[in-house]
Amino acid sequence: MSAPSSIVIDLKFTPNSISEALQSAFAERDVINMADEANQGRDLSNVDYAVVWKPDQRLFEKMPDLKVIFSGGAGVDHILTAYELPDLPIVRFVDRSLTDRMSEWVVLQCLSHLRQVTAYSKQQREHVFHELDGQPEACDVTVGVMGLGVLGIDAARKLKAMGFNVIGWSRGKKDIDGIETFDSDGLDAFLAHTDFLVGLLPLTEETRGFYNRSLFAKLKQGGALGKPVFMNAGRGGSQIEADIIFALENGVLGGASIDVFEAEPLPAESPLWDIENVIITPHAAASSDVRALFVHVEEQIARYERGEPLEHVVDREAGY
Amino acid sequence: MSAPSSIVIDLKFTPNSISEALQSAFAERDVINMADEANQGRDLSNVDYAVVWKPDQRLFEKMPDLKVIFSGGAGVDHILTAYELPDLPIVRFVDRSLTDRMSEWVVLQCLSHLRQVTAYSKQQREHVFHELDGQPEACDVTVGVMGLGVLGIDAARKLKAMGFNVIGWSRGKKDIDGIETFDSDGLDAFLAHTDFLVGLLPLTEETRGFYNRSLFAKLKQGGALGKPVFMNAGRGGSQIEADIIFALENGVLGGASIDVFEAEPLPAESPLWDIENVIITPHAAASSDVRALFVHVEEQIARYERGEPLEHVVDREAGY
Repeated sequence: MSAPSSIVIDLKFTPNSISEALQSAFAERDVINMADEANQGRDLSNVDYAVVWKPDQRLFEKMPDLKVIFSGGAGVDHILTAYELPDLPIVRFVDRSLTDRMSEWVVLQCLSHLRQVTAYSKQQREHVFHELDGQPEACDVTVGVMGLGVLGIDAARKLKAMGFNVIGWSRGKKDIDGIETFDSDGLDAFLAHTDFLVGLLPLTEETRGFYNRSLFAKLKQGGALGKPVFMNAGRGGSQIEADIIFALENGVLGGASIDVFEAEPLPAESPLWDIENVIITPHAAASSDVRALFVHVEEQIARYERGEPLEHVVDREAGY
Repeated sequence: MSAPSSIVIDLKFTPNSISEALQSAFAERDVINMADEANQGRDLSNVDYAVVWKPDQRLFEKMPDLKVIFSGGAGVDHILTAYELPDLPIVRFVDRSLTDRMSEWVVLQCLSHLRQVTAYSKQQREHVFHELDGQPEACDVTVGVMGLGVLGIDAARKLKAMGFNVIGWSRGKKDIDGIETFDSDGLDAFLAHTDFLVGLLPLTEETRGFYNRSLFAKLKQGGALGKPVFMNAGRGGSQIEADIIFALENGVLGGASIDVFEAEPLPAESPLWDIENVIITPHAAASSDVRALFVHVEEQIARYERGEPLEHVVDREAGY
């Protein structure tokens, strides 16, 4: 029986977090961590697996025997749109921890806008003890979740448990217990019902620039909080930030929570930082836990080597 | 058949909200709204019912035929501790809307502390795009809910749905599916397990000054966020604010979310407004919706007049 194949790691995460996680991962294989200078010139032929996040441009050229590509995150646009990729299965990272963290962010942002957190926070800084009028409750607000993969479905269920009225949208129609869903043809109807738009779409050719002025104009006006709120924790490339700013400044949107940006880090001079009722987080909604990532990769490699089908394989044509 | 008894309303809420709500309530009875100057000298004998929130001192003396007292909120300390009350049933306000609003506040505060919202908000004000290290997830944090009435049980269930590890405490032991509970004898063990303490206790002789320096010192240190967090949306009289400030300034507590205060409004000169990682809300966690209150009172009067037992009757001896 031949020795198990080596595995190449090329993850642009904090180097310490990777080396710590590697101490308890891939015990039976040789690990080639590309963050280690010594591995730069190394022969990578005969290596079957690569775990990557924004890998070096020429990595795939140096791996003629590569059999499976593992994405270091839930999204795969970082490789699909940036590289000439060999025709191999790409496995996305799906993990309970990643899913739960994303839902924490989504529910936190929806409750923050529902409960007028930025206005109360301003009052606190000014030492003002004053209850704001007309506080709606969660069931008065419809949250529209765009993207009904593992993340979107979990977020939708938790929002519903918190009392929000929840609807969902995905390119192709999906059935989810207790949640009304819309597909491509129903986009305008979905937007017309939505008070809080939660964006969890992958970045593909179709979604680039998707959250734009024309989309914001179709969101529900005159709901329980007066104006709609836009939230995005999917990919920054799906939004037009100039249009978000325009919509906020012209009363089309009443607020926003944004975790992902066209360019990251968000430049210090972006007007988004200071617009009233905008909450900015630094692409921190659902960071990949590296240990959990390696456990997931080990499980998928074990399946593959037993001859079972890989899970969470990306549809290259759809782009996610 | 005699005409239905009148009803006295003495609620220190926004007068407009009361008159609006009265337009669709108690259609078959005479309503005596004490907010109306013209009713000040009126004869209140022969009136069976009073709906009160911090009523005028002499109200009950003027109502010799009073049969049921309805509290305008979930708490009843505003009347039990402030008046010589006739020996009559007191019905607290229990309502889906009130419960849901309280759980919104509790989950919002727990997620805010979990996801380091005050630190990220400070970074936003400084235009800093930086992901904070060591972000735990909800299941790494134990929330201890004190008070397991309708509000506490609902909050505990929703916190659990969000992934938090949840434990509960009440004076007498309660069994709640899937949640470990403690009673009086288990107080120290409960506190030793608790990262986030959520206070939903009623104000009674036993709970006055209960959240104090000695209690904070028993909370768990060295959890996923390092230090414990105190949250109170019960009653301000249950907390010693000087002790909260001391605990925050001396590293016994790592943060707080407080909605209720020893004196309200919280004085502008209180140090609490400005302490790092403290979130202040102006007794707005779960405001009584007046329309919902009147629906609840109508339902209880209908039960009473059909000869059925009243629901949500206060235990005068326990004080809640």
